[in-house]
Amino acid sequence: MNTRINNIPHRRYNILTGEWILVSPHRTKRPWQGKTEESGKIKKEKYDPSCYLCPGNTRASGDTNPNYKEPYTFVNDFSSLLPETPRIDYKKGLLHAESEKGICKVVCFSPDHSLTLPLMKEEDITKVIQMWKKEYLELGGKQDINYVQIFENKGAIMGCSNPHPHGQIWSQSAVPTEILKKSIKFKEYWEENKRSLLGDYLVQELKSGDRILEENEHFAALIPFWAVWPFEAMIIPKRHLQHIGKLNELEEKAFAEILKKLTIKYDNLFETSFPYSSGIHQIPTDGKEYPEWHFHMSFYPPLLRSATVKKFMVGYEMFAGPQRDITAEQAAQKLNELSEVHYLNQN
Amino acid sequence: MNTRINNIPHRRYNILTGEWILVSPHRTKRPWQGKTEESGKIKKEKYDPSCYLCPGNTRASGDTNPNYKEPYTFVNDFSSLLPETPRIDYKKGLLHAESEKGICKVVCFSPDHSLTLPLMKEEDITKVIQMWKKEYLELGGKQDINYVQIFENKGAIMGCSNPHPHGQIWSQSAVPTEILKKSIKFKEYWEENKRSLLGDYLVQELKSGDRILEENEHFAALIPFWAVWPFEAMIIPKRHLQHIGKLNELEEKAFAEILKKLTIKYDNLFETSFPYSSGIHQIPTDGKEYPEWHFHMSFYPPLLRSATVKKFMVGYEMFAGPQRDITAEQAAQKLNELSEVHYLNQN
Ligand SMILES: O=P(O)(O)O[C@H]1O[C@H](CO)[C@@H](O)[C@H](O)[C@H]1O
Ligand SMILES: O=P(O)(O)O[C@H]1O[C@H](CO)[C@@H](O)[C@H](O)[C@H]1O
Repeated sequence: MNTRINNIPHRRYNILTGEWILVSPHRTKRPWQGKTEESGKIKKEKYDPSCYLCPGNTRASGDTNPNYKEPYTFVNDFSSLLPETPRIDYKKGLLHAESEKGICKVVCFSPDHSLTLPLMKEEDITKVIQMWKKEYLELGGKQDINYVQIFENKGAIMGCSNPHPHGQIWSQSAVPTEILKKSIKFKEYWEENKRSLLGDYLVQELKSGDRILEENEHFAALIPFWAVWPFEAMIIPKRHLQHIGKLNELEEKAFAEILKKLTIKYDNLFETSFPYSSGIHQIPTDGKEYPEWHFHMSFYPPLLRSATVKKFMVGYEMFAGPQRDITAEQAAQKLNELSEVHYLNQN
Repeated sequence: MNTRINNIPHRRYNILTGEWILVSPHRTKRPWQGKTEESGKIKKEKYDPSCYLCPGNTRASGDTNPNYKEPYTFVNDFSSLLPETPRIDYKKGLLHAESEKGICKVVCFSPDHSLTLPLMKEEDITKVIQMWKKEYLELGGKQDINYVQIFENKGAIMGCSNPHPHGQIWSQSAVPTEILKKSIKFKEYWEENKRSLLGDYLVQELKSGDRILEENEHFAALIPFWAVWPFEAMIIPKRHLQHIGKLNELEEKAFAEILKKLTIKYDNLFETSFPYSSGIHQIPTDGKEYPEWHFHMSFYPPLLRSATVKKFMVGYEMFAGPQRDITAEQAAQKLNELSEVHYLNQN
């Protein structure tokens, strides 16, 4: 994107949410005298006797984990949503609340405490994807579960309280805000063009190459034009699929391959275990058809300048809207200059 | 709010944005083994020779601060928006960006480096409010400035890189997302009722008292029913005012009084200099009429359990929508049980 707008303060439009983000490309030279974070630690031990996610250990609930060898999932001991929630609708003047049912699960990616996705074998990441798929279909198939949010909080800075490689799944009756926003935009475009909004966007991105990070036969990874977080990225399937339940075997493998490649780049950027929250956005499981939807996985990593300096989404961002300093194109370029081999495995 | 829904997982509706928030009241017992923050430091020195905001000191830009005695404001040396931005509209397929003009300012609340709002005298807080008013009217009166965001990032945990008491003002051509959302809801209600949505809400809250923190003749402070952050609060003028430019002298003083009371409670909660981002939401300065709007000031403080454990708005919150553990009523009760005297000044 070789245009003058790239060097001056500007706003970019997010085609999936209809919201704008403020970009201040001239602001990267600002000195930082504020808070620094602890750098993401590299774990050594494959088994930690005090970890409540390691195989064979006993959790806070008193339950003992089996001696699992493959991705392992269980109901969160501190679930924020519960399946046995009575139905209550509370309305009083301008106050409105309603009870919410749900099931929250934890997904251990590997029995090996020392690993993270970028350090796992591709075939083992494929098993994680298959587990996500199974859970999406099973949870989504239940009565009263109308949406399934798969996500990972990686790193202490992202509120992750246990370094064992794991993610979470929160499934619930209501369709959450972020999904509703995207549904509107997917639908508008579908009604006008009878094509996938994200599919068409991907075609345009692959043509220009400005923001592409990785590509294989079935998937691409890119920095979206409207990225909010400094190194925000998105993995998009080339086929117009509404949810991960529709992935075929080849696609599962291709997904694992690109997931590994992207997260290796992330770790290599600041030579640290790169923190992020990632999540999959896909269609509600309320039984309705959503032909317009195109599932995707996004990564929101907080680091900006180094392993210890993050971007703060505070005052202006909370009250007005998101703001970023480096452009999406600069972020893509930085990641593309890095080695494809994880820094821990180099020579 | 003595109802069964208050003890089970539920969602609450935000009447100002139309969005929902997930509340998990049963989840407060979750143990925390994750990241802890450094506690907000108490500053001792009234003057810091290395602080770029103290009177008489030289800033990064080379400019020297005058020997100011009252609130002092200047253009941010690292402004994210600039007044001399050429007008460019960039559209290419599904990419859309436009240049954005603006003026960013810093507002020093006091020459005294050691202070914060809760420790300032009421009459000196009144001067800060008068300065906000002046800036809102002056910046808002400029060509191409259609919105003025006044905010404060307090504490290192909120990305504040300098502990000198100060806030910021970012003013710009576009009306940002959060304001657009609220405009829709204010307008809907106005068209139906010809009354202020927030005014009616305040009347209802004052009647029940469940979430009220402070009240004086002209203002009230409360935990909104739909609060996202654990101790989120809102200061609302009783008079239906669209912006702070309309405050009369008595209201300025009453605003200062309630601001001081609320922030003292905040500091007393965990006996720390309580971090938050605060901001004022008011009408755009694009010259249009917005009779439906009712200005208000909100506080988004991150701390949850103690001076060192915050609420992480990560995975689920980023991908689905906000989630909280303690209820708004519990938060109000906790704050209401505290002394009105700042803990540093108690005996
Ligand atoms: O302008 P400051 O205080 O250097 O920066 C702080 O506030 C800004 C406005 O909310 C944010 O964009 C920055 O991420 C934050 O660190
Ligand atoms: O469930 P965990 O890992 O204990 O908790 C983490 O993820 C949750 C879901 O994003 C958040 O609500 C918590 O604030 C965060 O600390």
